[in-house]
Amino acid sequence: MSESLLQRRERLLGPRLPTFYKQPLNLVRGEDVWLWDAEGNRYLDCYNNVPHVGHCHPRVVSAIAEQAATLNTHTRYLHNTLLDYVEQLCDSFADALSQAILTCTGSEANDIALRMAQARTGKTGIIVTDHTYHGNTTAVSQLSRTNAPPGGAGGHIRFVPAPDSYRGGTAEQIGVAFAASVSEAIADLEASEYGFSALLICPYFANEGFPDLPSGTLATAISAVHTAGGLLIADEVQPGFGRLGSHLWGHQFAGVVPDIVTLGKPMANGHPVGGVVTSTDTMAAFRESFRYFNTFGGNPVSAAAALATWQVLHDESLMQNCFDVGAYARDGLKVLAQKHDCIGNVRGEGLFFGAEMVLDRKLKKPATAFCERVANGMRNEGVLLNRLGINYNTLKIRPPLSFKREHADLMLSTLDKVLGETELKS
Amino acid sequence: MSESLLQRRERLLGPRLPTFYKQPLNLVRGEDVWLWDAEGNRYLDCYNNVPHVGHCHPRVVSAIAEQAATLNTHTRYLHNTLLDYVEQLCDSFADALSQAILTCTGSEANDIALRMAQARTGKTGIIVTDHTYHGNTTAVSQLSRTNAPPGGAGGHIRFVPAPDSYRGGTAEQIGVAFAASVSEAIADLEASEYGFSALLICPYFANEGFPDLPSGTLATAISAVHTAGGLLIADEVQPGFGRLGSHLWGHQFAGVVPDIVTLGKPMANGHPVGGVVTSTDTMAAFRESFRYFNTFGGNPVSAAAALATWQVLHDESLMQNCFDVGAYARDGLKVLAQKHDCIGNVRGEGLFFGAEMVLDRKLKKPATAFCERVANGMRNEGVLLNRLGINYNTLKIRPPLSFKREHADLMLSTLDKVLGETELKS
Repeated sequence: MSESLLQRRERLLGPRLPTFYKQPLNLVRGEDVWLWDAEGNRYLDCYNNVPHVGHCHPRVVSAIAEQAATLNTHTRYLHNTLLDYVEQLCDSFADALSQAILTCTGSEANDIALRMAQARTGKTGIIVTDHTYHGNTTAVSQLSRTNAPPGGAGGHIRFVPAPDSYRGGTAEQIGVAFAASVSEAIADLEASEYGFSALLICPYFANEGFPDLPSGTLATAISAVHTAGGLLIADEVQPGFGRLGSHLWGHQFAGVVPDIVTLGKPMANGHPVGGVVTSTDTMAAFRESFRYFNTFGGNPVSAAAALATWQVLHDESLMQNCFDVGAYARDGLKVLAQKHDCIGNVRGEGLFFGAEMVLDRKLKKPATAFCERVANGMRNEGVLLNRLGINYNTLKIRPPLSFKREHADLMLSTLDKVLGETELKS
Repeated sequence: MSESLLQRRERLLGPRLPTFYKQPLNLVRGEDVWLWDAEGNRYLDCYNNVPHVGHCHPRVVSAIAEQAATLNTHTRYLHNTLLDYVEQLCDSFADALSQAILTCTGSEANDIALRMAQARTGKTGIIVTDHTYHGNTTAVSQLSRTNAPPGGAGGHIRFVPAPDSYRGGTAEQIGVAFAASVSEAIADLEASEYGFSALLICPYFANEGFPDLPSGTLATAISAVHTAGGLLIADEVQPGFGRLGSHLWGHQFAGVVPDIVTLGKPMANGHPVGGVVTSTDTMAAFRESFRYFNTFGGNPVSAAAALATWQVLHDESLMQNCFDVGAYARDGLKVLAQKHDCIGNVRGEGLFFGAEMVLDRKLKKPATAFCERVANGMRNEGVLLNRLGINYNTLKIRPPLSFKREHADLMLSTLDKVLGETELKS
């Protein structure tokens, strides 16, 4: 059944479409932290961050259903829900970050952010880290070194090494090294035809293995950005909306204040909503230099879905739950690390955490293939997670924020079993 | 009330955000072809094409509500609804157009189409018409001359004049002139560092005033495109999904077969869905050259919304209705033209039609400001339409496809009144 579904998929959608796991899942139902496949098997979802407040949360579903039955137009007419949402959203940021554009995807948000930085600085040079991903548009996809277009990325892009807390020395050393890389890239761009416009980072370096960086580690680099007249763009698609437990936003956790914030995936619990938040000055510069309208962006249904997700996040104290359960689960991982030598490093914040797998703790040699086998083994045992990081050897555990201790217990006991059964050879 | 809502909107969303009409509408409810504002006033919607099968169509709303309550994930898991939809969609095109990617917006679709053409041709030069609009991403927004970024559009873009059936001579002359412009642009691109990749057109030239072009008018131009090794991209965001009454797709109406088709706005009746349809060869070339994944694109709820819209379109024979009511309404406009000298030309297809307003029928001098006053006058009388075209002097009538003769009668009688009351001075 699954194989013929895969063949049909390739016939209709084309080749080279990635799926998760060696045996891809045909999911048919979701509820809270649970997913079911077509054969009725149940899976604990320890991976999906898009259903931020839980799969099919009834309040979000109701908000979508009710608004879809009432009105769905666009922002060339006026509508209160969008403004109610943007007001609450902006109130959660530093005072200067007070205006927003809603889009349909995080990619669209980053695509706008690049133009905002250009409008503000008159320059186009962008600095990003070397193993990140910021989205799929022509302009934004070039910012991923893992994803170079034919002919390579544009000459206006400079890649700097992402911090690596497991191998990169002390936090102070990491901060100094990152600032040096950024400063060098700024100088290089300023000497080019492009000039330096912005540093765009995920403030949690999520795709790069969420290195353990104390607040302030990035301060010197950000200071160099601002001294050079550039902007800091914080891509909050992954760490935002309370995912890190202690702070609503990744940049707040990192102790920096961005000039532009971009939002995506978890924003409306799966409804296609993204957004850009910035200052009145940057918004005015953007609107002065570029024409921008997004037909679906901020429409009444999208706004209702985003607002309901926001309300559930707060009303159900999910950030607090995220903090508590995340700490509990990481403690459990540390206990497993005493038993399983493959676990080289346990780290993370809130409900975005994991364990870096190594062939040898002393040499810290990445156990990349092993980590893949573990992710597949977990899937076969009914627990969904995945891997990421510079060497793709870090287990990525990032469940809906309604994940509870009992779910962490199931994940940990299953991981204990799978680690015990998976040969550590490569 | 409306004024303070406008001020709040500017405070939260920033300056220069366009609204429709001098007195913007605060809409709160929609049903079929009707809209209501916060004060309870009812409006006949003769403008919105996004609610393709009628505002808040109960079958589409149910499909969204039911799927949102059941499962909403992404295409790295398998799901039948997306495949069911893509299969039916592709069956409506020429045989070679057999694979699709679903996105969230038409902008994303065009952004992909440009890369598909690059992957296929190894070149990047794009030809577009000079008053069109294809979307809002950094790459796609440059294709609009009305929308130039700072420093102007990229050197890889060539603009050719859009056909004008009211002023441009016979259909044969228009076809020859368009082919000559396209051939010249091809030669110019081929002599440049970019080479010629694709001609991207709305096959109905919707934004340019939907000139009246018999099938085959574009054949010589398209032949030149293919002879030069380039691709034809048909942007069906406006004319597609039966809008023209006689054909499901604008390119079928125009009598051409594109290499890539892009889809957007009406695809899921307001749910954020867009798409790209192409051949297996072009899809394979794209997947070979570029990495692309869209988190929300083709998710189960988006697929269910698109499938329900497609089913309603067919089950309720809305294309036939569109053909009938469109012809009836255009006949009514022609009757009005006997009475009102300002109507220089009545044209259109199905439920995308209008009347070009002129100060003088002989000189065909565009009555641009008059046309704007008429659109505002209609709004004040409870009928929503707008204007477009090279000179923004063409009334744009483009209602949901469930628009009936009685609605056309109301639109026509209101237009008769407003034309009689609006001074024809500029």
